[in-house]
Amino acid sequence: MNARSRILAFSGGVGGAKLALGLDRILPSGRLTVVANTGDDFVHLGLDISPDVDTLLYTLGGIANPQTGWGRSDETWSFLSTLEALGGESWFRLGDKDLAVHVFRTTRRAAGMTLSAITSELGARLGIATSIVPMSDDPVRTEVRTAEGWLSFQHYFVRKRCEPEVQEIRFEGASQALPSKGVIDALNDPDLSAIVICPSNPFLSIDPIMAIPGLRRQLAEAQAPVVAVSPVIAGQSVKGPTAKIMKELGLECSTTVIARLYQDIIDGIVIDDADAAQTGAITALGIQVSVTNTLMQTLDDRIRLAENTLRLADRLAVTLETTEGVPGSAEV
Amino acid sequence: MNARSRILAFSGGVGGAKLALGLDRILPSGRLTVVANTGDDFVHLGLDISPDVDTLLYTLGGIANPQTGWGRSDETWSFLSTLEALGGESWFRLGDKDLAVHVFRTTRRAAGMTLSAITSELGARLGIATSIVPMSDDPVRTEVRTAEGWLSFQHYFVRKRCEPEVQEIRFEGASQALPSKGVIDALNDPDLSAIVICPSNPFLSIDPIMAIPGLRRQLAEAQAPVVAVSPVIAGQSVKGPTAKIMKELGLECSTTVIARLYQDIIDGIVIDDADAAQTGAITALGIQVSVTNTLMQTLDDRIRLAENTLRLADRLAVTLETTEGVPGSAEV
Repeated sequence: MNARSRILAFSGGVGGAKLALGLDRILPSGRLTVVANTGDDFVHLGLDISPDVDTLLYTLGGIANPQTGWGRSDETWSFLSTLEALGGESWFRLGDKDLAVHVFRTTRRAAGMTLSAITSELGARLGIATSIVPMSDDPVRTEVRTAEGWLSFQHYFVRKRCEPEVQEIRFEGASQALPSKGVIDALNDPDLSAIVICPSNPFLSIDPIMAIPGLRRQLAEAQAPVVAVSPVIAGQSVKGPTAKIMKELGLECSTTVIARLYQDIIDGIVIDDADAAQTGAITALGIQVSVTNTLMQTLDDRIRLAENTLRLADRLAVTLETTEGVPGSAEV
Repeated sequence: MNARSRILAFSGGVGGAKLALGLDRILPSGRLTVVANTGDDFVHLGLDISPDVDTLLYTLGGIANPQTGWGRSDETWSFLSTLEALGGESWFRLGDKDLAVHVFRTTRRAAGMTLSAITSELGARLGIATSIVPMSDDPVRTEVRTAEGWLSFQHYFVRKRCEPEVQEIRFEGASQALPSKGVIDALNDPDLSAIVICPSNPFLSIDPIMAIPGLRRQLAEAQAPVVAVSPVIAGQSVKGPTAKIMKELGLECSTTVIARLYQDIIDGIVIDDADAAQTGAITALGIQVSVTNTLMQTLDDRIRLAENTLRLADRLAVTLETTEGVPGSAEV
């Protein structure tokens, strides 16, 4: 990897943003593009809210709430407590500072700006050198089928606290959506040297991105190595409902199953020390494995995991180069 | 005046709300209707904002900022300072709690509710027994012509701090607007015993209300006495640009001129001790005068002025009754 290398990462919210922060810290300024899932986006109280975009902005801008991972640090709650007292909807926790971002986005969207352009403006205002780009400027809405019928994502995720059993997941609008220019530019960058799938929920954060026509194929065919970091450690998801959903969908919650979900697009995967015993099973899928501590509690953890991930990509790049032009051998 | 009497008051923002609070405190619960000017209403940052309605809600709800008279007490400003840091519009001072009211209103408007219904709901939530009603549920927008052309009201009033010289004022939409049901019901209430024009700006707060077809005539023909409280004391407006605008429109700033502006609709006017010398000139217009201290600095001031105003109305009621049916003599 040289100084001009570009890294492209795909991320959902909290878990993905942690690794994105590690990558942001170890790469030269402006060489990282993080693609945010926008399947969680919704209009609430008349406001355009992009939760994963904002988690990335706040995390990379150094203003994320360190306790929750989402929302802002030093937040105040006057708005929401007043709205609640008036009988307004308060199930989605909107802090006063967070609200400013949503109002900023909503007014600019109403003025005809794209989510990409607004996100870029917000990133610049927050002093973020990394490009945070939405997966698409077209609306894609994740919906979850439960015993109560189809629920919009935030109703399932926040209002219902992921409690209803998931029977099916769909991404409304995805088949008509185009990848954003930022995604396409990064994928076509001749200096693209690694593609990282952050440790986000495969079903709710990565699948909506891959549901955009062409993207999954582009990753599968990418010259640059594609490396995932497992969001599962010892059969558990670190945060969020990954393990619960896997069980509900009849899947074993293991790093091997994660690797299998990504089998067509990844060349390598970083797994936790706790899952070292699964290395053989994953390697048998044609996926290279790097074993390390993947739990990111401190900034140092994020940086070390980012370094480890890019090291695996570097190793794969050599392999891919040496096997270049040999059909079927790229993933050996 | 008996216990079933209904009082109807017309008000703009701060000054009018002070008298409305005095009236609210001296009348039996639920016997006061305050009609708010909505010519100042505007959409800002995608939010439906009704400044005079809110000043009345906050004042009568006991949560107005005691320093400014508008906005809320114990307000916080996280939203606005964050929006400003992002490069968003911050000239209109939106506090975090205030914002909750605007978002509440905006979401309900978007769901098809009228401003009247929303205002009634807000009043109930804030424990206000007095009915606060918008002058109309149709949009009326005050605009001010200056050397810079026509300015929307808030741009003139807040953004430009009333600095541009006023050449002309118009009320867009007024000729198509209907009075709200609350105004009509109060005017048709057989127990209506007085109509009060609060000490608000005649051009920017009362004229927009009177521009709604039929209202001015209904006041002129009302059975109940119509009493104004002068917003001018000793040639000065207590607050706001009344004196400045009168000068710019080529009018002398005096209580007599105020009385003349309302000559066709009022039966009496309450003026300040400082203007006692003008009593004769005003009486010559066929308008009865009550002279008192009209400066409202404390709650007691508001209550005393409200009492004085209703006393004048009571006196006029007797006069109007004794002259009933004698054409042309009602205002003698």
